[in-house]
Amino acid sequence: MAADFRYQKLEAWLLQGIRDRRWRLGERLPSIRALCREHAVSKATVQHALQRLEAQGLLEARPKAGYFVCLQATTVQQPLGRARLAAPAPVTVSDLLLDIMRRSAAFDLLPDFDAGDLPSGIVALNRSIARSLRRQKGDAFQYYDDPAGDPGLREQLTLHLSRRGYRPEPERLCITSGCQHALFLALMASCQRGDVVAVESPGFYGAMQLIEQLDLQVVEVPSSSASGMDLDALEAVLQRWKVRACIVSPAFATPAGALMSDVAKKRLLALAEQHDLAVIEDDIYADTALGPVPDPLKALDMDERVILCSSFSKCLSRDLRLGWVSGGRWHARILHLKLVTQLASSRYLQQGVAEFIADGSFAAHLRRQRNRLREQRDQLLALLHAWPGSTRASTPQGGLAAWVELPETVDTLAAYPEALKQGIVMTPGPLFSASGQFRNCLRISFAHPWHEARVQALNRLPGMLLQQ
Amino acid sequence: MAADFRYQKLEAWLLQGIRDRRWRLGERLPSIRALCREHAVSKATVQHALQRLEAQGLLEARPKAGYFVCLQATTVQQPLGRARLAAPAPVTVSDLLLDIMRRSAAFDLLPDFDAGDLPSGIVALNRSIARSLRRQKGDAFQYYDDPAGDPGLREQLTLHLSRRGYRPEPERLCITSGCQHALFLALMASCQRGDVVAVESPGFYGAMQLIEQLDLQVVEVPSSSASGMDLDALEAVLQRWKVRACIVSPAFATPAGALMSDVAKKRLLALAEQHDLAVIEDDIYADTALGPVPDPLKALDMDERVILCSSFSKCLSRDLRLGWVSGGRWHARILHLKLVTQLASSRYLQQGVAEFIADGSFAAHLRRQRNRLREQRDQLLALLHAWPGSTRASTPQGGLAAWVELPETVDTLAAYPEALKQGIVMTPGPLFSASGQFRNCLRISFAHPWHEARVQALNRLPGMLLQQ
Repeated sequence: MAADFRYQKLEAWLLQGIRDRRWRLGERLPSIRALCREHAVSKATVQHALQRLEAQGLLEARPKAGYFVCLQATTVQQPLGRARLAAPAPVTVSDLLLDIMRRSAAFDLLPDFDAGDLPSGIVALNRSIARSLRRQKGDAFQYYDDPAGDPGLREQLTLHLSRRGYRPEPERLCITSGCQHALFLALMASCQRGDVVAVESPGFYGAMQLIEQLDLQVVEVPSSSASGMDLDALEAVLQRWKVRACIVSPAFATPAGALMSDVAKKRLLALAEQHDLAVIEDDIYADTALGPVPDPLKALDMDERVILCSSFSKCLSRDLRLGWVSGGRWHARILHLKLVTQLASSRYLQQGVAEFIADGSFAAHLRRQRNRLREQRDQLLALLHAWPGSTRASTPQGGLAAWVELPETVDTLAAYPEALKQGIVMTPGPLFSASGQFRNCLRISFAHPWHEARVQALNRLPGMLLQQ
Repeated sequence: MAADFRYQKLEAWLLQGIRDRRWRLGERLPSIRALCREHAVSKATVQHALQRLEAQGLLEARPKAGYFVCLQATTVQQPLGRARLAAPAPVTVSDLLLDIMRRSAAFDLLPDFDAGDLPSGIVALNRSIARSLRRQKGDAFQYYDDPAGDPGLREQLTLHLSRRGYRPEPERLCITSGCQHALFLALMASCQRGDVVAVESPGFYGAMQLIEQLDLQVVEVPSSSASGMDLDALEAVLQRWKVRACIVSPAFATPAGALMSDVAKKRLLALAEQHDLAVIEDDIYADTALGPVPDPLKALDMDERVILCSSFSKCLSRDLRLGWVSGGRWHARILHLKLVTQLASSRYLQQGVAEFIADGSFAAHLRRQRNRLREQRDQLLALLHAWPGSTRASTPQGGLAAWVELPETVDTLAAYPEALKQGIVMTPGPLFSASGQFRNCLRISFAHPWHEARVQALNRLPGMLLQQ
């Protein structure tokens, strides 16, 4: 039928336009009136075509605003994620991380401390901490805190976690100086020198460097940028080598922001039981979820073999230096290790943060942050849309970064110094591997607002990387 | 001559009275007039006797107040310090420390958070931190601090240390989460599993527990409660065993508050060079000096083999959780270990503390604290004076505690639960040994004001310990 033909033709034309990047992610399509005029078709035909694209999730209709290009419509492809499986080996990692951390650039191409206003959540947090300082009485500053941490903060964390199906007794939580410190305690408690630890690949550099410093061995398990650790690959690894522990981020694993399904989580636990693994769950990105916050792996752990590690660094502030660990069967040893490596945490600080959670400010902050992060993620993906067509990028549903795969000829590590000369600090792919893989990849963060200078830096990158 | 005989008789009688505890430490002797009357001697004879005792440092003349019994006159004897020399062995330490720390009682018999007013130094510190929080701008909370710590704080620490003959470049300082964290980094960087580490005996429990947790071996070197580590004993140890590192507190070593002489420090460094030791200097008590603050061992270190570790916990606040380390030839490795075990420290906190030092508040706090600590130490020694005559106690010139030695029959470890029932938390001697020595000893702190309840607790202790 002629009518069918018209709307189908228009639909195909619109789709092609999106693929050709005539309209990019987040952009508005021409108005219905303009499409009618340009294609000499009726309003009903245009609406039909648009609604079909909307039904496929390619467009989003916004009342009184028009139709906008959605995430699913973009032609940025998913990374191939071709991590190699290699025998366990000592890690060798460069001083690259130290350099990036010195430049405060783990999550930013262009560090800019003063940008924008302090978010209201941080204003409220700082007020809570200042109130806690003012409340400090008499001789309290002369006493170390309980090695496990402030009971009030542990109580608030228990309530916070219980919304995700896991309700630890407060005495099963130990406060740490951040998630990295929690991971350190977990590895120290569950492993001995020379033991093999399985990690996601690409995966968190902090975990790999820790494994190196503790004289452990690492085995990289390929990980999908959509669904996380490849459990077939893990199973193959476990059959071949004696693995003591596995570090895994079911919720929005960095660098890609992958989300593990509940089915996969159950299978992981079954494998862990079968092969007697300690499972170290890095839960730090859970509260950055753009959709519902997934339950932790720990909620399914009937066997006390999951060590839950997390902190406030990704969902609240990197400057708090407060994390927590719930150590399963290793908890007593973790507590003792916390005591002898650090004695205690700051009591006034913990009490300030506990009040911030208790009065609802933390929940409000997370809601506002979610909206901000969604917007910044969409802007990043839109900007990546302008990169060469062979660029692939993950579509994170949480976390603070996307994983970007460029043509095989690109060497992000080699380009690091050149980018630095232009004031851009990259986070090259090999940082996310213990064996130097992913040289053609980059992690790009959307933790910060895409102001003009950051957009320009991002736009300059592909030229720089492809010209090498 | 008769006159000589009279003043000598009076002098001997006064001395015996002090020894018999008729007048205790800090108490005033009878007035000159009363002594004249009681002994039927002239005012000149009494004055002669008193002045001779004053010249011997046994009495102190206070204008318009009279003569007071001084520290040196008390018959509390110095501890014998008969630490055994034993072959290197893995440490075995109980959960006693964890229990004491849970009760916040490392430096208090009777923890009492609300006692007294907040000292003006802490009020000023908290205001500095709150100001730093209010100054936090824009996106700063989203960035981790430099792994080495805030440059401003490192600069202030450099200035502070330079008054003691050691002026590290700020890039040779790394900020930590307290001195225990610094000791951990120092041991991790300089030792490998199974290595032997020499420690003072009695010595700091935190160091011994750390050695245990890191799978190192410990060798206890007897230490004098007056002059610190016995270097003859250390030399004998070094000739017999391969020792990798030595942890030492030249300034007011806990538990006794011993002070190492400059001559001994030089000999220690010569031994370290000869036997290729890493020397881990625990400098945490230096700023609690009641007299001049001694130079650190590090100031004499021409060979980059001293790792200086310290923090604000003893001289400012236990709740800050800020320390520092200057790692000599191991500094780069220490910095890397700090990064991978903790990422960073809190920037706003460091900036607040830096301002507190820069505006002179820290120096003023130390001056006021010195007077308070001197008074509290003298009160403690006066109270110990009332303990059975066989009690020995150290005479700390700094630090926060005295080391008390009771008759050999006393078992402070066995008495711990009984004291606990009465609300008293002791710090038993065996905590300060890796081999369970010093069961008849106690560390007693003078960090807190001797209010009525603490005095009562202290007075109840000897009865409880001797009745066992």
